[in-house]
Amino acid sequence: MDEFELISAITQTLRKNQPRQPQQPDSRPAPALTLDIDTGDDAAALSVTKGCTIVWSVDAFTEGVHFRRQWVIPLQLGHRVVAASAADVVAMGATPNFALITLACPADVNQEWVLALAEGLGSEASALGMQIVGGDVSVASEIHITSSVLGTVPAGMKPVTRAGAKAGDTVAIRGPLGLAAAGLAVNESDLPQAAHQALRDAYAYPKLEKNTGVNAAAAGATSMIDVSDGLIADAGHIANASNVTIDIATRQIHLSPNLVQAAAQLGLDATALALTGGDDHAIVATFPEGASLPEGFEVIGSVRESSNGGKVLVDGAPFTQIGGYRHFS
Amino acid sequence: MDEFELISAITQTLRKNQPRQPQQPDSRPAPALTLDIDTGDDAAALSVTKGCTIVWSVDAFTEGVHFRRQWVIPLQLGHRVVAASAADVVAMGATPNFALITLACPADVNQEWVLALAEGLGSEASALGMQIVGGDVSVASEIHITSSVLGTVPAGMKPVTRAGAKAGDTVAIRGPLGLAAAGLAVNESDLPQAAHQALRDAYAYPKLEKNTGVNAAAAGATSMIDVSDGLIADAGHIANASNVTIDIATRQIHLSPNLVQAAAQLGLDATALALTGGDDHAIVATFPEGASLPEGFEVIGSVRESSNGGKVLVDGAPFTQIGGYRHFS
Repeated sequence: MDEFELISAITQTLRKNQPRQPQQPDSRPAPALTLDIDTGDDAAALSVTKGCTIVWSVDAFTEGVHFRRQWVIPLQLGHRVVAASAADVVAMGATPNFALITLACPADVNQEWVLALAEGLGSEASALGMQIVGGDVSVASEIHITSSVLGTVPAGMKPVTRAGAKAGDTVAIRGPLGLAAAGLAVNESDLPQAAHQALRDAYAYPKLEKNTGVNAAAAGATSMIDVSDGLIADAGHIANASNVTIDIATRQIHLSPNLVQAAAQLGLDATALALTGGDDHAIVATFPEGASLPEGFEVIGSVRESSNGGKVLVDGAPFTQIGGYRHFS
Repeated sequence: MDEFELISAITQTLRKNQPRQPQQPDSRPAPALTLDIDTGDDAAALSVTKGCTIVWSVDAFTEGVHFRRQWVIPLQLGHRVVAASAADVVAMGATPNFALITLACPADVNQEWVLALAEGLGSEASALGMQIVGGDVSVASEIHITSSVLGTVPAGMKPVTRAGAKAGDTVAIRGPLGLAAAGLAVNESDLPQAAHQALRDAYAYPKLEKNTGVNAAAAGATSMIDVSDGLIADAGHIANASNVTIDIATRQIHLSPNLVQAAAQLGLDATALALTGGDDHAIVATFPEGASLPEGFEVIGSVRESSNGGKVLVDGAPFTQIGGYRHFS
């Protein structure tokens, strides 16, 4: 297969699971972005409706840094790439609609691997109501994947940034904490792998609910971010941008039994994994005091004034165990 | 410098040359897309002030495949990344406006190298009236850069694809052919490098005129593409998508004296370099017979009917010398 035949096979695989136009939630009006020109030209073309706000991000995934081939099957990696990159758009209070994917890989990556990756990409895109509308395929000495995602903010609403948290706000989260980090620790350990498959899957295959960000924005979220580098690090981005103190209450963090069990076997602290583990792509938002939290969000802390720059406290005190998650390299 | 300090330094360097909003050609109306949220959040956000068509592409650049560190200084590489990725948007008949950049690089790439790259990225973006509004920085064992570009089609116009060429059309090109390939061949040779600096620069630093695609569309271009893989390969994409025969007339191809001289010294055929050399990012378009060609375009061939699929001929015959350019790996 030459480059162009491979691109054609990838495109067909991506399309297997994909609607021609992204699925729209039933109750929403006609889309603000519609696809005019799909894969196969120099660029994709999209019609945009006046008054719409589009949100645009990119994430990169490098073998040996963000994943290892022996720990993640390509189908799961495809899911993870799309979910993780869409999470940035979701965390802006937008709905992810379209993606462009780049794949660079070595000659020893065979066609089956690439097409299984494409199947994962297409399947996750479909689950999120997204379409993959183009990309770039090339060679490299290690696998590099990037995913650039374009999303839309519902009419009449604004993107939710990291900068709007206010003293008195509630900090809430939707999605798991620490599972992916525990899964990674299991991968690296001598523990029986099959006994911890749920955690290994949490690492390989983060779950994202596509309406999480839009629902949080509709509920009045004042700031929002996805947890890619760990709760303390990412809450720190909100604290810095908003110039507030965020105080995480560990008693309010739900620790899954799988996480507690694996942490005990690994000699790790389950709470520390939940506070510093990355790659779960849970969505953290701040809401005004008394706001009714949208489905799936649970309170994990509060926002206070800060007299000297943004900071994150855990149970009222600085957290000193681990400085922040930097993937595994 | 940690990751976040480095991103901050990169952002400052990018901004040095950049206007707060992209420059608009004097004669054009207010932009259809305006930037609401710049770098520093999960995603960039753009308001759509007028219904419009946006064009969106991505290009990847890997060390050892698309460039080698010893042959290209980072300042030039930054220019090339932005120009090459913007060329896809230009070739759709659009104006490139915004870019997201990902950079993955090994620990032995120092901060000066990264900031010189950022300076090149920012400087070329500025020259093209573009803004870099976000990205992703991570580590890898080789340098890998991607650039995702968003552009707009002027109001009332449609994107120009590869699929509209018709029998009787004229094939025309704006920009050089073969210079980058000759520069690459010089880099790989024992020839005195300084004597061929112009060709080496053509490889490191392709020139793109930002209005080329919009002007071609306004002149009635029926199909368009940028020459990234070589004229024959890229004209072949038009021929296939349009189901026509494209006949290139070599006597109409301008061979620069630098190219002719270097080819002679390298023992290469200058015309073959012009026909198959990639990376110049000249813009090839087809125009209806008798159309007045826009500034800078020169006729290099004609379009005929094809009875059995798209094909490219050179002076009326199949071209058999080199199968197509695949960068240097």
